[in-house]
Amino acid sequence: VNLVLIESGEADAGGTLILDGPRRDHLIEVLKVAPGQPVRVGIIDGPRGTATVETVAATTITLRCRFEDLPPPVPPVDLLLALPRPKVMRRLWAQVAALGVGQIILTNAAKVERHYFDSHVLAPATYRPLLIEGLQQARDTRVPRVSIHRQFRALIEDQLDTLYPDGLRLVAAPGARTPPSAAVDERGGGRVLLAIGPEGGWNPFETALLAAHGFRAVSMGARTLRTDTACVAMLALVHAAG
Amino acid sequence: VNLVLIESGEADAGGTLILDGPRRDHLIEVLKVAPGQPVRVGIIDGPRGTATVETVAATTITLRCRFEDLPPPVPPVDLLLALPRPKVMRRLWAQVAALGVGQIILTNAAKVERHYFDSHVLAPATYRPLLIEGLQQARDTRVPRVSIHRQFRALIEDQLDTLYPDGLRLVAAPGARTPPSAAVDERGGGRVLLAIGPEGGWNPFETALLAAHGFRAVSMGARTLRTDTACVAMLALVHAAG
Repeated sequence: VNLVLIESGEADAGGTLILDGPRRDHLIEVLKVAPGQPVRVGIIDGPRGTATVETVAATTITLRCRFEDLPPPVPPVDLLLALPRPKVMRRLWAQVAALGVGQIILTNAAKVERHYFDSHVLAPATYRPLLIEGLQQARDTRVPRVSIHRQFRALIEDQLDTLYPDGLRLVAAPGARTPPSAAVDERGGGRVLLAIGPEGGWNPFETALLAAHGFRAVSMGARTLRTDTACVAMLALVHAAG
Repeated sequence: VNLVLIESGEADAGGTLILDGPRRDHLIEVLKVAPGQPVRVGIIDGPRGTATVETVAATTITLRCRFEDLPPPVPPVDLLLALPRPKVMRRLWAQVAALGVGQIILTNAAKVERHYFDSHVLAPATYRPLLIEGLQQARDTRVPRVSIHRQFRALIEDQLDTLYPDGLRLVAAPGARTPPSAAVDERGGGRVLLAIGPEGGWNPFETALLAAHGFRAVSMGARTLRTDTACVAMLALVHAAG
């Protein structure tokens, strides 16, 4: 944890914050803080700040926080991901949040197995703590918006313009000739939505529908990567190009 | 599996290859091949090629292979990695091989726990199949060389010039101002060695020793990433810059 995230309201108006439970234990046992020491803090979806440890008690730790005026900007990249199998998705939540995305749009596809949608990794009670873990790693406060879509066609045709009204649309396609940096450079600013397909790829209908809705194919070369590796690699490339 | 890797000698001089066990089952049950169909094949550390399915029997499958004249080039990137905890290292083997590295140099560091070196994830019997899994995903045949170093100082001072005699040396450092693309561009070709530190970072001695031995600090921005995320993200950036 490189920044301790708290809910709005956990610190009082004077900036006093009393933590107990795992966050108190993490500060003392892992970060080994002591009275007088500074700790990076942030309010979920709010500003970052610095806290000073005031007192350490048997079950609590008391900090005095000062927050910046403004929250950090929302990352300029969004992710459209064909739902990977639950074990992979579980690992991706924190990694994607750490890399920085404004929203995560999860979708069905021909090569996604239906039962993936029944997994508890898609329950907010499971994924929100994982997103927050990633934000605490990366020192961000902005929890990505998450939406889950069981119908790919309805998502692309009817809902996507509302979810993502304006910006560049890219789809990772092994063998495409354009690297993400070139596509982002040409556009020159604004948001980027990156689509990553299922293991086995989009089928021809899905590929055509994405193309018809403005998605440009980009690639990172001839190597075919697993979904989770591709997700991290392509998000890094799109961020670096921005 | 996007390419089936075999050991040199498994196919006879005429190109006939008989597979049994998990590789036979994977071809039939997952890739659903039938007689007459083409399958991408490769010889470990040798050339890639195409095979045609000749016959499918109860416990075997027979293929006729034709290989290219030359093996694919060794990827132009090497990785120097402070050994992460075994669970993370286990996941990295295939991902790193899929992204493409010529060698993986694993090292101790102040913030690496000693017992990590006793893990069976460092045994060739464990990691070689994982490397091959990554190569089969990415359609490469070149198994990364692996070396394991329990003494960071001896590695950097005495062994590194032999392991990595010539090329650019980069170290990922959160907060560094140079992106990997700029460092690679300046150099203009040749191999790149990318160093990724432990969770918690290199200590001041290690940072200074790396700098004294030609490692240039590069970063992908203000966000601090976990070792595994950083590894995949930075390898993608270095590859894209090459």
